[in-house]
Amino acid sequence: MSGFLFTTRLAADASNGNARLGWFTTPHGAVETPAFMPVGTHASVRGLAMHELRDAGANMVLANAYHLYLRPGDEMVRALGGVHAFARWDGPMLTDSGGYQVFSLSRYRTVTEDGVEFRSKLDGARHHYTPERVMQIERNIGADVIMQLDELIAGGSSYDASRSAMERSLRWLERCRVEFDRLSRDGRAPVRALTVPAGAPPLATDDIARDIVAPPQALFPIVQGGTWADLRRASIDGILQAGDWVGVAVGGLSVGEAKSAMYETFEVCSPLLPADKPRYLMGVGFPDDLLEAVARGMDLFDCVAPTRMGRHGTVFTPDGKTQIQKSSNRTDRRPLTESCPCPACTQYDRAYLRHLMVTEEPLGPRLLALHNLTFLLELMRETRDALRDGRFGSWSAEWLARYRHGR
Amino acid sequence: MSGFLFTTRLAADASNGNARLGWFTTPHGAVETPAFMPVGTHASVRGLAMHELRDAGANMVLANAYHLYLRPGDEMVRALGGVHAFARWDGPMLTDSGGYQVFSLSRYRTVTEDGVEFRSKLDGARHHYTPERVMQIERNIGADVIMQLDELIAGGSSYDASRSAMERSLRWLERCRVEFDRLSRDGRAPVRALTVPAGAPPLATDDIARDIVAPPQALFPIVQGGTWADLRRASIDGILQAGDWVGVAVGGLSVGEAKSAMYETFEVCSPLLPADKPRYLMGVGFPDDLLEAVARGMDLFDCVAPTRMGRHGTVFTPDGKTQIQKSSNRTDRRPLTESCPCPACTQYDRAYLRHLMVTEEPLGPRLLALHNLTFLLELMRETRDALRDGRFGSWSAEWLARYRHGR
Repeated sequence: MSGFLFTTRLAADASNGNARLGWFTTPHGAVETPAFMPVGTHASVRGLAMHELRDAGANMVLANAYHLYLRPGDEMVRALGGVHAFARWDGPMLTDSGGYQVFSLSRYRTVTEDGVEFRSKLDGARHHYTPERVMQIERNIGADVIMQLDELIAGGSSYDASRSAMERSLRWLERCRVEFDRLSRDGRAPVRALTVPAGAPPLATDDIARDIVAPPQALFPIVQGGTWADLRRASIDGILQAGDWVGVAVGGLSVGEAKSAMYETFEVCSPLLPADKPRYLMGVGFPDDLLEAVARGMDLFDCVAPTRMGRHGTVFTPDGKTQIQKSSNRTDRRPLTESCPCPACTQYDRAYLRHLMVTEEPLGPRLLALHNLTFLLELMRETRDALRDGRFGSWSAEWLARYRHGR
Repeated sequence: MSGFLFTTRLAADASNGNARLGWFTTPHGAVETPAFMPVGTHASVRGLAMHELRDAGANMVLANAYHLYLRPGDEMVRALGGVHAFARWDGPMLTDSGGYQVFSLSRYRTVTEDGVEFRSKLDGARHHYTPERVMQIERNIGADVIMQLDELIAGGSSYDASRSAMERSLRWLERCRVEFDRLSRDGRAPVRALTVPAGAPPLATDDIARDIVAPPQALFPIVQGGTWADLRRASIDGILQAGDWVGVAVGGLSVGEAKSAMYETFEVCSPLLPADKPRYLMGVGFPDDLLEAVARGMDLFDCVAPTRMGRHGTVFTPDGKTQIQKSSNRTDRRPLTESCPCPACTQYDRAYLRHLMVTEEPLGPRLLALHNLTFLLELMRETRDALRDGRFGSWSAEWLARYRHGR
């Protein structure tokens, strides 16, 4: 796929186990893996500016196709120059299909073999989400990596329900692939005439209408199957038979299952996934889970939990999670953590951060979300350093012992 | 007063009218005037980090004694090293007495000659605010400039009510002065033993208890009297008889009166205020009002409106206020303003800023509040440049014409 390349810098070996050091090149630059990708649902990571993400060490950012499809609209994003120009992020980007949001946020959704019919939670308007439609939307938005539409089911679903959703996801993947290839070959549909409101400068709509060539993008399939090993194997089988992918995602985890079951699922999937393609573990973002996943061969990660937790005062430290609002922080002038380079840790102290949260000052959620993000990005940086030095096994064991048992 | 000095760099003259260029030195550094001071109610300017204020050109920052008295408590602020150390702002600071908040935010307030009895809006607890108590609180918090307690009345109050409140404010000023001097002479009361919660590092409470010497601070009186010229004159008379002040504030304006009445009040007050002391106009922060006030001899300004308006999408531009949510911004890829150095204007475009507000992404309020603040700080910087060049009159007339009539 033009513009994409994955190089395994250090493959699995004795000192690093199944952990890999990689280099994922996209049309908007490269990402060294393992890497954590901040989630910018509406093409904005809640409360944070793009320069802060960059300073914190982020290289690749997510946005959500469902949210951008509803507002400002995928055609509007395209007319405004695509998601990179829109959000002013010139590095690699990925859009999730929005399958998860359709299943969890919409009202009155109806799932059929054709796709999902739902009403928007914003205005009740009816929308039809099919694999083909999702490809059109994600190709309009224009992120580097785009995700297939898959069928999401609740954590803890039965074997039969998991198999049925996994099999439908495979059929939808095939439809995504066909539509993705058609758009690559025939170009995107012209943008409908967008009404330029009075007082606004003209949009180059004629140019946009002519500009139907789809940008270079990579479509990632998603491995499903819950925590059933045979379903995961069947899912990977189907995916690898369906095409030659730039990368493969593993989805449907961290939805309430035991951590041991999640880790076992990594072990089931990893050996079956091609060694020369990046592996994106969707929705996993706790520090311990990241290290366990890296140890089992995963490369890319995303999760909204770290920023959401930060906004509510739960913060990562090397000694585990803590709550900034707890009373022992009232008089504590020490930094939140000694080692973190984020503004919350370098510019302020615990007593003041607690005060911001207690008085509901918006600087508090902002600083603590940035802290948690920085913490994960630093953890991935340290992970890559340890891999390079061939000491990932011992380093991560030590890191996890401290994180899990505190001081 | 030790550590304070006001130098008039350029006094009123033919080319600049009654506008002045000054240099106000405090124990935490100097401020070139005219200057706008961002308001950090809880020792945090809503949503903004201190380094952003500094980058935007802020030199002096406000905090509110009432809010800090309630949370985390004035003694706690003192025990944590004072408000500068607490908020990590090492430049000049000012605390408002909180009189305005007591009168507007509290429940069941009762005003007597002794002071104000009120119940906290947070927990209903009963508090007693007297001129003496307010001095103790503000001396614990430790800002460079502290304000007297005055009696606030609603905008549009009768002549008699205005006179009565003005006269009481003068009597309270005298009580503030006596207590302020007593604290300077005898030292502050030792901080009561603050319970250090389990798990927190010890506070140097012994040191704090011994450390009763009050820091160098300046007490500013507040001119009251509504829009009645004779009451304003009487207020200034009383204030100047009551002591030798470092600076004088003008309060009770921008509370609903006609702009012309406000501007006339500046004209009444200015000639009577000592030329060698800074004049702080409280609560005025619209661009046109700032220039009109500078032209009439005012030096220092504060107002929460610019940041509050920004959080709701109303933004200052050289062509007047505008609303970022308006539909013509949907497709507008131009910067919010061409000339502003703030991140909203230099890093993003109108279409994206509108999208942030429409989707309620917290980056929107944050960027637009910082924009409005930057706009006022830049306006004051340009004002000082114009004063230095002796072209304030012509420059401000041109600026105001564009701002008031738009493009």
